[in-house]
Amino acid sequence: MSRLGEYTCGLDAAMAVVDGKWKPLILWELQDGPKRFNALHRSLAGISQKMLTQHLKELQRHGVVHRESYHEVPPRVEYSMTPAGRELLDALEPLGNWATKHIDLIVAASTG
Amino acid sequence: MSRLGEYTCGLDAAMAVVDGKWKPLILWELQDGPKRFNALHRSLAGISQKMLTQHLKELQRHGVVHRESYHEVPPRVEYSMTPAGRELLDALEPLGNWATKHIDLIVAASTG
Repeated sequence: MSRLGEYTCGLDAAMAVVDGKWKPLILWELQDGPKRFNALHRSLAGISQKMLTQHLKELQRHGVVHRESYHEVPPRVEYSMTPAGRELLDALEPLGNWATKHIDLIVAASTG
Repeated sequence: MSRLGEYTCGLDAAMAVVDGKWKPLILWELQDGPKRFNALHRSLAGISQKMLTQHLKELQRHGVVHRESYHEVPPRVEYSMTPAGRELLDALEPLGNWATKHIDLIVAASTG
């Protein structure tokens, strides 16, 4: 197997990491520092707890989110971006800018 | 409804356009000029004809791919990138570069 594994190219591999509606938004919500699960859940309107749990696990597996469990009473768990996660959010910025520029077209397509 | 429609932010809207494994790769395959359906299908190993058809329709709806039908015998249909599509592919480049840099982690996560 090549160094790229199952992926055709870097872009293909990138989409495996940020696929779907929520993962870029989860990274966005973590940009200002660690957050607890409930705070993340509140800030992402429309995501189910189950889906947020699953996405956080996948983001951890891909090394872009870190989960820290504090041995306190009651127990405290916080999620944060890793350095690779921060680089990923930076790499997503031009994509967000592109969509902001073309937002009228995208909104028209989704409602039409 | 705000100018963003159903979307939270530009990045959210962008993911609606490039969601999934294939759409960025379809754009990538169109970067050097128009291609016919069969040529696109051959160059994207693993995509079904049905899925390619559906993705091309959605990319057209989002204004990033153009479909041109030539009245010839036999009929010829070509797909090309619009200017907005080319800008989108450019905006995806940092994402591909990010994944290339972190490819070992991504491959390990997908096989582990």
